[in-house]
Amino acid sequence: MADVKKIVECVPNFSEGRDLEKIEKIVENFRAKKDVKLLDYSNDEDHNRLVVTVVGEPLAVKEAVKNAVGTAIELIDLRKHEGQHPRMGAVDVIPFIPIKNIDVKEAVELSKELAKELWEEYKLPIFLYEDSASTTARKNLAKVRKGQFEGMAEKVKEPEWAPDFGEREIHPSAGVTAVGARMPLVAFNVNLGTADLKVADFIAKKVRHIGGGFRYVKAMGVSLDDRGIVQVSMNLTNYKKSTIYAVVENIRTEAKRFGVNVVGTELIGLAPMEALIESAVYYLGIEDFNMDQVLESRIME
Amino acid sequence: MADVKKIVECVPNFSEGRDLEKIEKIVENFRAKKDVKLLDYSNDEDHNRLVVTVVGEPLAVKEAVKNAVGTAIELIDLRKHEGQHPRMGAVDVIPFIPIKNIDVKEAVELSKELAKELWEEYKLPIFLYEDSASTTARKNLAKVRKGQFEGMAEKVKEPEWAPDFGEREIHPSAGVTAVGARMPLVAFNVNLGTADLKVADFIAKKVRHIGGGFRYVKAMGVSLDDRGIVQVSMNLTNYKKSTIYAVVENIRTEAKRFGVNVVGTELIGLAPMEALIESAVYYLGIEDFNMDQVLESRIME
Repeated sequence: MADVKKIVECVPNFSEGRDLEKIEKIVENFRAKKDVKLLDYSNDEDHNRLVVTVVGEPLAVKEAVKNAVGTAIELIDLRKHEGQHPRMGAVDVIPFIPIKNIDVKEAVELSKELAKELWEEYKLPIFLYEDSASTTARKNLAKVRKGQFEGMAEKVKEPEWAPDFGEREIHPSAGVTAVGARMPLVAFNVNLGTADLKVADFIAKKVRHIGGGFRYVKAMGVSLDDRGIVQVSMNLTNYKKSTIYAVVENIRTEAKRFGVNVVGTELIGLAPMEALIESAVYYLGIEDFNMDQVLESRIME
Repeated sequence: MADVKKIVECVPNFSEGRDLEKIEKIVENFRAKKDVKLLDYSNDEDHNRLVVTVVGEPLAVKEAVKNAVGTAIELIDLRKHEGQHPRMGAVDVIPFIPIKNIDVKEAVELSKELAKELWEEYKLPIFLYEDSASTTARKNLAKVRKGQFEGMAEKVKEPEWAPDFGEREIHPSAGVTAVGARMPLVAFNVNLGTADLKVADFIAKKVRHIGGGFRYVKAMGVSLDDRGIVQVSMNLTNYKKSTIYAVVENIRTEAKRFGVNVVGTELIGLAPMEALIESAVYYLGIEDFNMDQVLESRIME
């Protein structure tokens, strides 16, 4: 009966973590805007960086982000910027994350529309990255950002590093920005009943993509010294395809080889409800389950 | 940072399931109202009954329900009402269900406020029921409604059946209405790998409150003839206290006695995300989990 409402998340990173007045002016673009909800923002003085988390209707979010980029270009001069975190622009990176009634493809389209507008309105050159990337090398933000602001004027002149939008010249004060779409990231750790880091390392290698494990899992072994245990620390980059329960059960299976038990798990930060509900549906064995049976799913429409 | 928004659900039942014009006039009270969202409505001609599901900000929902009751009193005359479903008023029953940032106590208060207003504005006598009930006998809607509209004029004169709001006289055309608060109901079934109904009956008796089982579980054995299996069919009346995973694991344990396996489960209708996420947290063994880590939980605030 009701219109299907699309919800996208956006987490733009701005290169200003110290001047609270400037930070407020940037964040102001996300306040009291129709169909846009500011979920969180946090600035880090050492990193000299501001991370904003905003959700809402795709076009409204895109518009608010565009305005915030305009504010950032006015207020931030990368030629005077120092901080521990690597960065290449006044706005370093703008990822769009599909949340509800929108898939990655549509989020990619949205990211490309924003990229085009940022170039046309502000003459800000854009690299598309992650799922929006035009080449495999550009999928990885670290590769795109390599050389940082200081090296970027040269880098964009290299044959393979022309910006996706814009010319082979950086914005004098604002540098370049990476814009793209990606699935929500789920940070999930599995704790093992042993102090032997080799066990966690072994299992991390087995469970992760590069070791032959799950396609959308990045993993490493970590020692939790205060608890005398070790942990397989993971990022699930597509929780719909590499599911939490499958990963946890795989780790349980591998741990048996060492006579080690899974003693607990941790969800770090936020996760979409679907990432957790899929595990409930698996373990409870619910037949013909549909996410529309979740009350909140209906309320959000 | 944002204001904490309370969300309550209300499922008023109106005694009109046939006249689409009247139904639309009643439902109209829930359309295009600020902070009120009409989730669903369905009318049944045999039952001659309309069930509306609405969610939103508590005071806004209460106001919309009050207006809908006013419309129903104008349009429905119980003296001319026929239908298979038991009923005692033009508006038979109005349950409030806490969904977010509101507990049952507050929902009880809300139900009592509405009850008071319905008496004062429409001279409609009210029985408080479920968690709002003033006596144990009134908790159960079936007991309150016994005698139905036709017997209610006499019933309210019995010593123990004075309405909670109003005098010992029914509204001439609209009868009386039950108003109350209750936890969301989760309808959950567990399928067993046997055709023997006695097994499902035995387990249903073990798992349910009256048989010594879980406090907030109602259960019965059912035969699924087309599939050649049986089922423990349940209502969980407080999913926070009698959790889905605990009930399923208990049924699994009891079924072992017969060498029978749980072959699947079913969620009927809607459930709050928390009911399912609690099971994910249990099976995955997530330490220090907080519902605020669920993205949708943050978006809804």
